[in-house]
Amino acid sequence: MKRGFGSDNHSGFSPEVLEVLSRANEDHAMAYGDDEVTARLEGLIRETFGAEARIYLVFNGTGANVLSIDAMCRSHEAVVCAETAHINVDECGAPQRVVGCRLLTVDTPDGKLTPDLVKTHLHGFGFEHHSQPKAISISQPTELGTLYTLEEIKSLADLAHEYNMYLHVDGARLANAAVALGCSFKEMTTDCGVDALSFGGTKNGLLMGESCVLLNPKLDMDMKYRRKQMTQLGSKMRFMAAQMECYLESGMWHRNAAHSNRMAQLLRSEVEKVEGVRIVYPVQVNSVFAQLPREVWKRLQERYFFYDWDEEADVVRWMCSFDTTEDDIHAFVNALKEELCRK
Amino acid sequence: MKRGFGSDNHSGFSPEVLEVLSRANEDHAMAYGDDEVTARLEGLIRETFGAEARIYLVFNGTGANVLSIDAMCRSHEAVVCAETAHINVDECGAPQRVVGCRLLTVDTPDGKLTPDLVKTHLHGFGFEHHSQPKAISISQPTELGTLYTLEEIKSLADLAHEYNMYLHVDGARLANAAVALGCSFKEMTTDCGVDALSFGGTKNGLLMGESCVLLNPKLDMDMKYRRKQMTQLGSKMRFMAAQMECYLESGMWHRNAAHSNRMAQLLRSEVEKVEGVRIVYPVQVNSVFAQLPREVWKRLQERYFFYDWDEEADVVRWMCSFDTTEDDIHAFVNALKEELCRK
Amino acid sequence: MKRGFGSDNHSGFSPEVLEVLSRANEDHAMAYGDDEVTARLEGLIRETFGAEARIYLVFNGTGANVLSIDAMCRSHEAVVCAETAHINVDECGAPQRVVGCRLLTVDTPDGKLTPDLVKTHLHGFGFEHHSQPKAISISQPTELGTLYTLEEIKSLADLAHEYNMYLHVDGARLANAAVALGCSFKEMTTDCGVDALSFGGTKNGLLMGESCVLLNPKLDMDMKYRRKQMTQLGSKMRFMAAQMECYLESGMWHRNAAHSNRMAQLLRSEVEKVEGVRIVYPVQVNSVFAQLPREVWKRLQERYFFYDWDEEADVVRWMCSFDTTEDDIHAFVNALKEELCRK
Amino acid sequence: MKRGFGSDNHSGFSPEVLEVLSRANEDHAMAYGDDEVTARLEGLIRETFGAEARIYLVFNGTGANVLSIDAMCRSHEAVVCAETAHINVDECGAPQRVVGCRLLTVDTPDGKLTPDLVKTHLHGFGFEHHSQPKAISISQPTELGTLYTLEEIKSLADLAHEYNMYLHVDGARLANAAVALGCSFKEMTTDCGVDALSFGGTKNGLLMGESCVLLNPKLDMDMKYRRKQMTQLGSKMRFMAAQMECYLESGMWHRNAAHSNRMAQLLRSEVEKVEGVRIVYPVQVNSVFAQLPREVWKRLQERYFFYDWDEEADVVRWMCSFDTTEDDIHAFVNALKEELCRK
Repeated sequence: MKRGFGSDNHSGFSPEVLEVLSRANEDHAMAYGDDEVTARLEGLIRETFGAEARIYLVFNGTGANVLSIDAMCRSHEAVVCAETAHINVDECGAPQRVVGCRLLTVDTPDGKLTPDLVKTHLHGFGFEHHSQPKAISISQPTELGTLYTLEEIKSLADLAHEYNMYLHVDGARLANAAVALGCSFKEMTTDCGVDALSFGGTKNGLLMGESCVLLNPKLDMDMKYRRKQMTQLGSKMRFMAAQMECYLESGMWHRNAAHSNRMAQLLRSEVEKVEGVRIVYPVQVNSVFAQLPREVWKRLQERYFFYDWDEEADVVRWMCSFDTTEDDIHAFVNALKEELCRK
Repeated sequence: MKRGFGSDNHSGFSPEVLEVLSRANEDHAMAYGDDEVTARLEGLIRETFGAEARIYLVFNGTGANVLSIDAMCRSHEAVVCAETAHINVDECGAPQRVVGCRLLTVDTPDGKLTPDLVKTHLHGFGFEHHSQPKAISISQPTELGTLYTLEEIKSLADLAHEYNMYLHVDGARLANAAVALGCSFKEMTTDCGVDALSFGGTKNGLLMGESCVLLNPKLDMDMKYRRKQMTQLGSKMRFMAAQMECYLESGMWHRNAAHSNRMAQLLRSEVEKVEGVRIVYPVQVNSVFAQLPREVWKRLQERYFFYDWDEEADVVRWMCSFDTTEDDIHAFVNALKEELCRK
Repeated sequence: MKRGFGSDNHSGFSPEVLEVLSRANEDHAMAYGDDEVTARLEGLIRETFGAEARIYLVFNGTGANVLSIDAMCRSHEAVVCAETAHINVDECGAPQRVVGCRLLTVDTPDGKLTPDLVKTHLHGFGFEHHSQPKAISISQPTELGTLYTLEEIKSLADLAHEYNMYLHVDGARLANAAVALGCSFKEMTTDCGVDALSFGGTKNGLLMGESCVLLNPKLDMDMKYRRKQMTQLGSKMRFMAAQMECYLESGMWHRNAAHSNRMAQLLRSEVEKVEGVRIVYPVQVNSVFAQLPREVWKRLQERYFFYDWDEEADVVRWMCSFDTTEDDIHAFVNALKEELCRK
Repeated sequence: MKRGFGSDNHSGFSPEVLEVLSRANEDHAMAYGDDEVTARLEGLIRETFGAEARIYLVFNGTGANVLSIDAMCRSHEAVVCAETAHINVDECGAPQRVVGCRLLTVDTPDGKLTPDLVKTHLHGFGFEHHSQPKAISISQPTELGTLYTLEEIKSLADLAHEYNMYLHVDGARLANAAVALGCSFKEMTTDCGVDALSFGGTKNGLLMGESCVLLNPKLDMDMKYRRKQMTQLGSKMRFMAAQMECYLESGMWHRNAAHSNRMAQLLRSEVEKVEGVRIVYPVQVNSVFAQLPREVWKRLQERYFFYDWDEEADVVRWMCSFDTTEDDIHAFVNALKEELCRK
C-alpha cells in the first residue's frame, strides 16, 4: 500500500528501530522486564518525567489506557472524559470489561474538556446508586488534533485534586503535542499535576512502544499483578524497552513528531488554497480534518485510503506520519483537486 | 546476561527475524490486521492446520490462552485442566478476571490429563449451582516437558465432544512437540479433533509471535471484538504476521525446535552421568527437570540463573533454547559437577 | 417516618402480602424455584404475557435489569438508552461490572427514546473498535413519569429488529403504565415486539417482587446459570413467587397502580392551583415533577422527605404510593403553600 | 411437599417472622437501609460481634460470600479454601465473575482447613505470574457438618495475619455452630481474629436474612458502592433488617439451631441402630451424612427428597431443620428400614 493519510499507524517504523532491536538481541536476558534494558529505561523515565515516575510497558494503546484507568479507579468509580475520547469510542468497551467502571462523557466542541464541562458530572458523591467520579481523562493531543495549553491541563489537574480525583492523559501522540507546544514531556504532564499517562510511540515511528507511566506514586500499587492479569505483560520485554529507550534518548520522538506536524501544516496550507474544502479544526499536530462534498471524498478514497470522521457532516480525517513526504502531500492535493473538478 | 537455562524466553530472536521485519517495513499498510502480510498468513494457517483454521494474532501467551478460553466458554462455564497448567498457575488469574469462568483442576503425576482424570469433573451438568464444564485444556508439551501421543490427544478430544465440550491445546511450545513426535502441526491438532489452539513462537526464536488458532469453525464468533475488548489487538500487526509467516514458511519452527530438543537430550545425557542428580521427568522436548541437593542448586543458581520448580522437593528446571550451544551445556555441566564436589 | 412523597419504595407492602406469605409457608418446598408456587407463577406469566414468556425471579430492580442486559448482550456489545435511564444513572455501574458492556446514552427532552435518537448510535457495525449496538432499553413509564404509547414502543421494537437488535423495557413501574394506558401487560410488551422485560412489583405494594421476563425465546439461553452466577438466585423462592402470583392474580397490580396514579393526578391538580410552582413533565403515572423556588423546596424537605431531581434547575420529584391518601396530599399541599408564603 | 431432610432451606420460616414483618410495615421508611430498623440492627450487631462490627445486609448466601471476598481481595489476589467449600463448589463461579479472583483449593478429609493445608498455597508472594494469596475462607460449620474449635479458628486467623492476609468465615449456619460449641457468636469470630463473616439466618428459620459482617474495620472501604454494584442492595431493607433483628434479639437463632441440632442427633442415634448404614462424618450440627447401598437410597429418594452427596461413594446427606419433628425422624427411619429390608 502506498504511503497515504489513513493513520499514523499505517506507517512502519523508523530505520533506527532495526538497529536497536539488533543491539538488544545479544545473549540472554531475564524476561518480563527484569532485564538491563528495562532497568535503564526506568531510569530514563525518571529523568524525563521526574523522580517519582514509574513506567509499565504494555503492548498497545488500549493496554496503556486500561492499565491507567485500573490504577486510578475501582469498578464502582468513574472516569469523566470527552464523548470523542479514544477510551470511550475506540476501545470496544475494554475499560468496562476489564476494569468494570463507567465512563461519564461530555460533549465538547473540539474534543477538549474544560473544568466547567467536567463539573457537570461532579455530583452524587457519597450516593451509592451513582458511580463515584474518580478520574478525569483527557487526550493530548485530542482525537480531533487539538491541544490543551499547559494552563488548561493544570486547571483540570487542580479540579481533579480538589475533588480527590486523578487526572489521566492519553498520550498516544504525546510527542506531537510536546513539539507543537515547544515544551518538555515533564512540563506538559508532571509539572501540570498529571497523575497517570498513557505514553506511546507506536504512532510516531516505533514498531511497538506503549506504556502506562504513573506520575503520582500513590497510584503505584499492585501494578505488576494488574498488568499481568489483564494480559499485558510481555515476555521479551527488552525489545520493547529498547525501542522506548531509543525513542527518548536519540531524539527520535522529537524528530519524527516535528516532521509529521510540519507535514500537516503543509497539507493544511495546500488544502486551504483549494476551493470547496473547509478545514474544520485548528491544525495543531499531525492531523487535518476537512469537510468536502461527499462524492468527492468518496472518489478520493478510491485513490487513497483515509477515514471519514463524521459521515453525516462530510468530515474526513487526514493523518500525516513520520514518513510522509512533501511529494506525498502534493500528489494527494492534486488528486483532491482532480476529484473536485470532476464534481 | 550470558546464555543459560532459565527459560526459552530468555533467549532473543533468530537472526532471520530482523530481515523479516525489515522486509515488512515497506510503505504503509492497513493497521489491525487488514494488511497483505496478515492475509498471507491466514492462507498459510489454512494450509498448515486445515481449511477451517482461523488465526487471531495476539501479543503473548496469556492473550492466546485467554482468547481461546473466551472463544469456548462463557463465564458460568468451566475449563478442566491440570493443576500444573500454565492457565491455572501462571496467568495471575487472567482467565478468571477477563472471562470470569472457573478452572477445574486435576492433580496429575506428569502434567498430563487422561480421560479418567477429566471425568472426575464431568458431573453437575444442568445443576445451576455448578459451573458447567465446557472445555478441556491441555498443554502440549506440558509444563513438565512431557508429551501427549496423538492417540492421547484424540481420546481427550473424543471425550470432550461426547460431553458437548471443546478441547483446547496450549501450544506455546507446540513446535518442540511436533519435532519430538515427528508429526505435522495438523496431525497433532486438527486431525486429533482439537477445537482451539494457543499457538506460539516466541519461546522458539521469534521476537513476538503468539496467536489463538481456531480449528472448530463453530467457535469463530465475534472473535475480532473479543480480542479487541480484552486489549489484545495490535496496530502494526503486519510485523507480528510477518514473523509468524517466516516461522512457518522458512522451517524456522522446525530448525529451532529440533535444536533445542537436541540440546536438552545432550544435557540429559551429560547430567545422567553425574552422580547425585536425578532426572525426574522423561526428557521429551527442550526442558530437563532435575532433583539435586539444595545447597548445590542454590550455589549453582549463583552462577547460572534457573528456576526452582518445586523447592520443597529440590526439583529445578533447566530449559534449552534455540541458541543453546554444546559448549553452553558442557560448561553448565562442569559447573554443576564443581558445585556437587564442594558439597 | 410518616407517609410522604419520597419514593414508591418508601411505602411498605399491601396487607394481602402477609396472607400470601403465610399461605406459602406450609410444610417444605424445594428451594431455588423448583417448587409448586413458582411453577404456578410460570404458568400465570405465560397467560399474562403469552405462551413464549419465561420468568426469572430476582431480588431487585438492579438484578432484573442486569439479568435482562446479560440475556441480550455480550460484553463487546452495547445497549442504547436514555441518559436518564435507571440502568445508566442509578445502578452504580452494575451493567458495566457484571456484564462488561457499554451503555450508549442519548439526551432526551422527556426521558423517551425515539427511533431518530436511537439511530444516532446505530453505526460502526462490524468495526471491531466499536462496541456493537445490540439492544435498545427504554423505561415504561420513564424515570420522568412519561409514557410511551404502544405505537412508540412498536416503532422502537421494529427499529431494533431491523438492526438485529433487541428491545428491553425496564418495567419497575409497569403496572402504573398499563393502568394509565388502559391496556394489558401483553399489549404493551409482547404484542409490541418487546424482547425482554424487567418486571417489578416492589414499588407497587409488594415486599419483594422483581423479575426478568423474556418474551423472545431466542434469549432464553443459560439463564439459570447466569442468574445464579450474578448472585441473584433466591433459595426460598416460593415466597417471592407467591407475592408475584398474588400481584397478578388478585388484581393487586391494577388496584394499587390505579390508586397511586389517581393520587398523582390529585396532587397535580392541587399543585396547579398554587402560584409559584410549575409542573415540568406531563403527569401520566404516579410521579409529579415540579419546579419551585429553592428556599421553598429546601424548607419543605425539612417537613417531608423527597428528592431534588435537578438541583440546578430547582426541579423536585414527588412520588405517590399505593398507600398515599387524599388527606396526605391535602396536608402536603398545605405545607407547600405555607412554605411558599414564608418566602 | 411434606417435611423432609433435603435441605434446611426447604423449610419455610418461623412463625414470629410474620409478626416481625407486620410490625415493620407501619408507615413509610427510607429505602436502601437508611431506616430505623436497619439502624437498630447495626447497633445490635455491634453488641453481638463487638464495637467495630459492621453489617451489610444482602439477599442470599452467594451475595454474602461474594461481598465478603470483594472486601478482602482484588482480582489479582486469591482466597485459600477447602475443595468442598460452598464458595468453590456451589456458587457457579460467582466469585470469579464478580470479583475476578482465584480460589486456591485444598483437599481435606473432613471439610476443615488446617494451617498446614493452607500453607501449601502460601508461596509465590511477589511473583507477578501468581495470584497473590490474600484471604483464607472457612465454613463454620463446614459443608460436611463438621466444626472448627475456637482454637482452630484462632490458629487460622493467626496464620492469615502473619501473612498479611484475612480470615473469612462462611457462616450460613453459624447459629448451629454456636449452639453446638456452646459459645457466643463473638467468641467464635471476633475474639478468634476473624476479619469478615457471611452471617445468615435463612437456613435457620428466617424468610430472608443474609449479611456480610465485617469485623476488621480496615476492610470497611467503599462497601456500600460495592454491594450496590454487585446487585445486592435491597430497597425495602427494613423488612430484611427486622428479621435479622428478631433473629438475634428474640433468641430465635439459638432456639431454632438447638432444635435442628438435636433432631440431627436423634436421627444419628436412630440410624446408628440400623444395620447397613454408616454415618461417615461426626454429627456435630444439623446434618447427617450416611453411606448406604445405592438401590436403597435411590428407592428412599422416591419417598423423601434428599441429595446424594457423593454418588460414587454412595454417600447421601440428610439435613434437619428448625421445624423437623421427632415424628418426622421416626417416620423417615422407618422408611429407611423398609427400603433396606426390600434389598
